[in-house]
Amino acid sequence: MEKFFYPESIVILGLSAKENNLSRLILGNLIRWGYSGRIFGVNPRSEERHVDGIKMYRHVAELPEVPDLAVALLPARFIPEAVRSCGMFGISRMAIPSGGFNEAGEAGKQLAEELQGAAREYNIRFIGPNGLTIVNTANGLCLPFTPLYCPPKGGMSIITQSGGMGLFLWNLMADQNIGLAKFASIGNKLNLNEVDFLKYFARDPETKIICLYVESITDGRALLEAAAQCEKPVVIYKSNTTRAGGRAAMSHTAAISNDEEIIDAAFERAGIIRIHSFHDFISVTKAFSLPAMRGKRIMAMSPAGGFSVIMADLCDKAGFSFADPGQPFYDEIAKFGNAGIINVGNPLDMGDMYDPKSTADIFHLALHNDNVDGAIFINQWPRMPVGDDIFTRMFHTDLSQETMGAVRSSGKPLGVCLFGPSDTITRIKHNLSIPIFDSPEEMIRTLKIQQEFYQRKSDEPFSPSRPQAIYREDAAAWLQGHRGICGEETIDLLGLYGIAAPAAHLAKSVEDAVLSARAIGYPVVMKVVSPDAVHKSEAGGVMIGLRSDVEVAETYAKIGSNLAAYKPGAQFEGVRIIRMAPPGYDMFVGGRVDDAFGPVVFFGYGGIYVEIFNDTERALCPTNHDEITAKLGRLKSYSMLQGARGQKKGDMAAFTDLIVRVSWLLADFPQIRELDLNPVRVFGEGVMALDGRARITG
Amino acid sequence: MEKFFYPESIVILGLSAKENNLSRLILGNLIRWGYSGRIFGVNPRSEERHVDGIKMYRHVAELPEVPDLAVALLPARFIPEAVRSCGMFGISRMAIPSGGFNEAGEAGKQLAEELQGAAREYNIRFIGPNGLTIVNTANGLCLPFTPLYCPPKGGMSIITQSGGMGLFLWNLMADQNIGLAKFASIGNKLNLNEVDFLKYFARDPETKIICLYVESITDGRALLEAAAQCEKPVVIYKSNTTRAGGRAAMSHTAAISNDEEIIDAAFERAGIIRIHSFHDFISVTKAFSLPAMRGKRIMAMSPAGGFSVIMADLCDKAGFSFADPGQPFYDEIAKFGNAGIINVGNPLDMGDMYDPKSTADIFHLALHNDNVDGAIFINQWPRMPVGDDIFTRMFHTDLSQETMGAVRSSGKPLGVCLFGPSDTITRIKHNLSIPIFDSPEEMIRTLKIQQEFYQRKSDEPFSPSRPQAIYREDAAAWLQGHRGICGEETIDLLGLYGIAAPAAHLAKSVEDAVLSARAIGYPVVMKVVSPDAVHKSEAGGVMIGLRSDVEVAETYAKIGSNLAAYKPGAQFEGVRIIRMAPPGYDMFVGGRVDDAFGPVVFFGYGGIYVEIFNDTERALCPTNHDEITAKLGRLKSYSMLQGARGQKKGDMAAFTDLIVRVSWLLADFPQIRELDLNPVRVFGEGVMALDGRARITG
Repeated sequence: MEKFFYPESIVILGLSAKENNLSRLILGNLIRWGYSGRIFGVNPRSEERHVDGIKMYRHVAELPEVPDLAVALLPARFIPEAVRSCGMFGISRMAIPSGGFNEAGEAGKQLAEELQGAAREYNIRFIGPNGLTIVNTANGLCLPFTPLYCPPKGGMSIITQSGGMGLFLWNLMADQNIGLAKFASIGNKLNLNEVDFLKYFARDPETKIICLYVESITDGRALLEAAAQCEKPVVIYKSNTTRAGGRAAMSHTAAISNDEEIIDAAFERAGIIRIHSFHDFISVTKAFSLPAMRGKRIMAMSPAGGFSVIMADLCDKAGFSFADPGQPFYDEIAKFGNAGIINVGNPLDMGDMYDPKSTADIFHLALHNDNVDGAIFINQWPRMPVGDDIFTRMFHTDLSQETMGAVRSSGKPLGVCLFGPSDTITRIKHNLSIPIFDSPEEMIRTLKIQQEFYQRKSDEPFSPSRPQAIYREDAAAWLQGHRGICGEETIDLLGLYGIAAPAAHLAKSVEDAVLSARAIGYPVVMKVVSPDAVHKSEAGGVMIGLRSDVEVAETYAKIGSNLAAYKPGAQFEGVRIIRMAPPGYDMFVGGRVDDAFGPVVFFGYGGIYVEIFNDTERALCPTNHDEITAKLGRLKSYSMLQGARGQKKGDMAAFTDLIVRVSWLLADFPQIRELDLNPVRVFGEGVMALDGRARITG
Repeated sequence: MEKFFYPESIVILGLSAKENNLSRLILGNLIRWGYSGRIFGVNPRSEERHVDGIKMYRHVAELPEVPDLAVALLPARFIPEAVRSCGMFGISRMAIPSGGFNEAGEAGKQLAEELQGAAREYNIRFIGPNGLTIVNTANGLCLPFTPLYCPPKGGMSIITQSGGMGLFLWNLMADQNIGLAKFASIGNKLNLNEVDFLKYFARDPETKIICLYVESITDGRALLEAAAQCEKPVVIYKSNTTRAGGRAAMSHTAAISNDEEIIDAAFERAGIIRIHSFHDFISVTKAFSLPAMRGKRIMAMSPAGGFSVIMADLCDKAGFSFADPGQPFYDEIAKFGNAGIINVGNPLDMGDMYDPKSTADIFHLALHNDNVDGAIFINQWPRMPVGDDIFTRMFHTDLSQETMGAVRSSGKPLGVCLFGPSDTITRIKHNLSIPIFDSPEEMIRTLKIQQEFYQRKSDEPFSPSRPQAIYREDAAAWLQGHRGICGEETIDLLGLYGIAAPAAHLAKSVEDAVLSARAIGYPVVMKVVSPDAVHKSEAGGVMIGLRSDVEVAETYAKIGSNLAAYKPGAQFEGVRIIRMAPPGYDMFVGGRVDDAFGPVVFFGYGGIYVEIFNDTERALCPTNHDEITAKLGRLKSYSMLQGARGQKKGDMAAFTDLIVRVSWLLADFPQIRELDLNPVRVFGEGVMALDGRARITG
C-alpha cells in the first residue's frame, strides 16, 4: 500500500496533448503539486514525442523501467487489456478512475468481471474504478482528473466512495485552516476497499484523523475490526439512509430495529464516530486538533451574558458538568473586574473584564485548575470604527497570545468560538494553531464527541465471554432437524443455551388438552398451534388464566373456531398447554442477521405493543454482560424494571444473562436468520421466555 | 411607538467629552450613521459648550424644544430624577440603557420601582433599563453605546433580551448579505416589552421578518396573540431551557409535560417559528427571502452524485416529497447531457451537463413545471488553476444569470447551496438577490420551515368553540365547595362538563361496602380513600375484579391494612366502590396552569407507566376538535387506538371530545391548578374517566 501513496515512478496511460484529454489534467496536477518522482506517458495512438515535457511511449513494454504505479483513465472497454499489458510488464499497482463498469448496466458488469480477472491473473492491486483515486500532500501526488490546487497540508485523511464529495470537502478545509494528509477516492472498490485504506491510514504517521464518506457498507465486521484496532479517531458519514426501511420480516420484533440503528450499535462498539452532516468532518476535526479532554467538567466563559445562558443550555444538553474551580479561583478572577457589578460563576460572565491581559490570566487560571477538564470561550471580532475605547480593546484582541500558552502548558482543550466578518475570522484562523469554532453548537457538540472518544479509548476493550452451561452440539443437532419458520418449539432450542421457559405440552385433542393441563397444574395458558397463525393473538388463539378441566375443554373448541374465523381453511394442529407464569415484566428479545454486520440481538419493552413504543436497544452478537447492562440502562422501560410506582424490582442480572445467551446462540448459528422471544417475562427472581419463534435456513 | 424609531429630535443626558464617556459613543454612532434629526446634549456637571459640535445644556428645562426622545445613560441612582426632569419638561419617550436595577439586588429593585413610579407620574414610555435600546437603519438612529458600523439595510428586525446577543448577530448578517431594518434591545423590559415591539414591527413596512431572542417569557398569551395576528414570520430563539425541569407537582402526569413542550405547543398554535440555534436567525431569514414554497414537491439537483444521495436523505427526513416533473421534462433535460452516461431522475444528477447555459435552461424548466413547488441546487465554486477545461466551465459560473430569472418569473423558490472559499462565496452572496446557503442541511431544513409557515397561514385560523351540555354555573358552585387536593370526587366535577364515569359509591364500613357493591352490580373495583395515599396503587389501595359479597368484605379489610403498612398512621376514610368498566384502552388526560401560557391540557398513553413512556401531547386551553385530532395522530399510542394487532378500534371521536371538554373546564376555572385523569378508558364506543384528581386554589 505504501507504494500507492509514495510511488517513485508513475506511468499515465492514454496521455495526449489533445483538448479535453483528462489524463493531461492529471499530469497538470502532478506538475503543479511538485510531484518529484519520474513520470512516463503511454499512448499507442499518438505520434507526440512528449506531452508538457513528459516523454511519450507507444506501449508499456517500451518503458525504460517498471513504474511503481500506473494510472489508467481510458474508456472502460480498453481497461482490461491495459491491465494485462501492465501486468505483463511487471507493474503491480494501478489507479483506475474510469467509469462504465458495474455501475453501468449489464455490459459494464461484464467489463468489471474482466477487469477483476485480469488483475487476479497478474496479481495487480488497484483502486477504483469510477473514482478520483489517490492524493498525497506529503509528496505532491495528485491523481484526480480535475484541475486542483493543493489544500493546506495537515493531519486529515479522507476515504470517500464519491470523488466529488471528497473534493467538496477541500473547499471547507482551507478556510478553516484544516490540512489534508492523504485522500483515497475508492469508487466501485472492486479491489481495494475502505477497510484497506483505513488500515493503512491507521499506521500512516502523517494521518491524525481518518474521515470516511460511504453510501454503503459491505463487510461491516472487517470495518469494525480495523476501526477498533486504530488508535486514531475514525469519523464516518454514511448517507443513503432513508431507503433503509421497508424490510419484509417474519416478525414484528425483527422489523423493529432498522439498519441505521444497527449501524449505530456497531459503530459504538468499535469506537467509530458517526456524523450526520457533511460539515461535521470539519467540525469534528477541529475538536480533535485540541488536546484531549479527560473528563466532563467544563468551564464556560464569555463577555456576553446572553452567550453564558446559551452555553449553559448546550453544555447541559451535551452531558458536560459545570466545573467548580473553587472560591480561590473566583477571588482571583474578581480582581480583573472593573465595575465589580457582575457576579462570578460558571459560566463566567467576563463582561466586566476589559483588559486583554486579564483574559490571558483567566484562561491560564481556568485551564490549570485541577477541577477543570476543559474550557470554552465565546467572543466576537466585529468590524468596528477606529478607536481606543474599551469595546475596541475588549473585542480586537490577539487571541494567539491569550490562548496558546494556557492550552499547551495545561494539556487541556480550550474551545474558542468567534463571531465576526468571515475575512477577519479566516485570517485569525490562519494565525492560530488551535481551531476557531463558528458557533457554540459546533464547539460544544464536537468537544463532547472528542471527550467521549478519549473516555472510550481509556475503557477496557470489548471482549465477549461465553456463558457456562451451553450445549452447543445439541443445539446444532436440533437445528439440523428444523427448517423454515418454527413456532413455540423454538423454546426447546433456547433451553439448550440455558434459557428457562414454563412447562408445556402440545395437545392435539380436547382429551389430550385436559390431561396435559392436569399434569402441568392449573392455572394454564392455551395457545393455538397453526402455521397459518404466526401472530397468535391476532388469530384469537391465546387464552390465559384457565383454571379447570371444563374451561380447558371449552377453550380448546373456542380456539379452533377463532382460527377458522381468522383465516378460513387454516390448518389447526392443536393447542399448546402451558403452565401460567406468575406476573412479572413483559419484555422481548429478538435477533436477526444483518447484511453488513451479521447476527444482531435486540431487546426491550415487550408485549403486543412492542412496535408502537419501540423501546428497544441492540447489540452485535456475541455480546457480554457489561454491554447489555449499559444498554438496558438506556431503555425507557428500565425504570419500570427498577420497580417504579411501588412495584417489585425485576431480576436484571437474569435478564441480562438471557440476552447474552441469545447473542451467543445467534453468533454460533447464523442459520437462525430471525428470532423473536416475546414476551420474555422478568420476575423478581429469574426470567422466562414465554413464547418464541425463529426462521431457520439450511 | 413610531417616535421611538423616527424621532425628529433627541436629547442625550450625561453627555461629555471626557474619556470613557459612554454617552459620547452613542453620539458617535448617531453622527457616523447620518442621523439627521436634531441632537441636544445635557450635563449639569460639565462646563463644555459643545461635545463633538453638539450644543450642551446644563438642564433639560433649558432645551429650546421638547425632544421626541431622551437617552439616559447615567448611573442607576440618577435615573429616577432624570425621568422626572424629562417628564416635567414634557418629554414622553425615553431610552434607558443603564444597568443596576432589578437585576442588581435589593437596592436595584428599589430603584426599579422608583423608575416605574416616576414614569407613571409623567406618563412616560421607556425602553430598558439594562439594554442597548434602539436602532433604525432607515434613518440612522443608532443608540447602543458600543461603536458600530451600520449593517446592510434590509428586512430583518430584531427584538432581544440581551443586547450583546443582538450585536453578535450583526457579525453574521453582512457576510450573508442579510439586511437589518430595526433593532430593539429591551433589557429588563420594565415598561415596553417584546410584545409592544412585536406589534409595532408587525405593521412596520420596512420589516419583513421579526426575530426575537428571549431568556424568559412573561405574558405568553399576549405574545401569542400578537404573533398570531402578524402576517410576517416571527422567529423566536428562547434560551435558558435546561433549568425548566425539577417542578414539584402533585401528580405524575402534571410533571410529564415540561415548560419547553408547552412553549412548543403554544408557538405552534400561534404560527411562531421556534429555533434552537443562534445561527438559525440567519438561516431562516435566508429561506424567507425566497418566494413562498406552496407545496411539498421538491426538485433536487446537483452536478455531484454524492450530494444527490445526501439531498435525498435530507428531503425525506424533512418531509418533502420528490416532485415528478414528467417524462417530457426528462426528455428535454437529457438533451443537455454530453456523454449521455447519467440517468436523469429526481434528484437530478447534473454531472454530465457542463454548459452553464444549460444550467439556466434546466432551472427554468424545473421551476416552471406544474408538478414542482420548489427546487434546490448544490454546487461548488472551488479555488482552481486558470484554465478553459470543462471543470472550470462547470464550476465557475455566474449564478445570477442562471438563477434569478427562473425564480422571479416562476414565483417559486430555488435554494442554492454553494461550497467554496469564504471570500469567493461572500462576494457571490453580495452579487445575488437570492440567498446562498452554506450547507444542504441549512437549506433543506429552513426551506421546510418556510413551506410549513405558508401552509399554516393558508389554513383557517385557530378558533375554539364551546361544546354543548356544559353546566358552567354548577361547576363554579362545586368549586366553591372544594379546595386543595381532591381525589375521586373530582369525577363529579367532570360530569358537569359532560365527561362520563362509571357508577360509584363511597363506603365507610365493611357493611356499607357490601351494600354499595350489590347496588352497583358486580364485578366492582375498590379503591382506598385517604388523604395520605395520593398514588393509590403504590399504597396497595386498588383491587379490581371483585365478584362477590365475600370478596368485597375481605378486600375492605385488606385495603385498610395495606394503607397502614404503606404509611403508619395514615387516615383511612373508606373505600370507593366502582362498577368495573369493560376493557378498553387506558389513556390519560391531565392539565395544569402554566406560568407563562395559562391553562394547558395534556393527554396520551395512560396507566401506571405514563411517565416511563412519556407518550404525550399537549394544547393550550381551550382547544378544539381539529387541534386535538391532529395531535392525537402524533402519539405513538395512536396506532394502538386504531386497533393494532387485531384489537378493536378505540372511539377517537369520543376521546377527542373528552379532551376538548377538559380544556374548557380548565380555561373556565384557572383555580384548577392541576388535573389528572388516569386512566381515561377508551372503548369501542364511548370513553370514561376511571379515576381523577385535582388541585384547586381559592
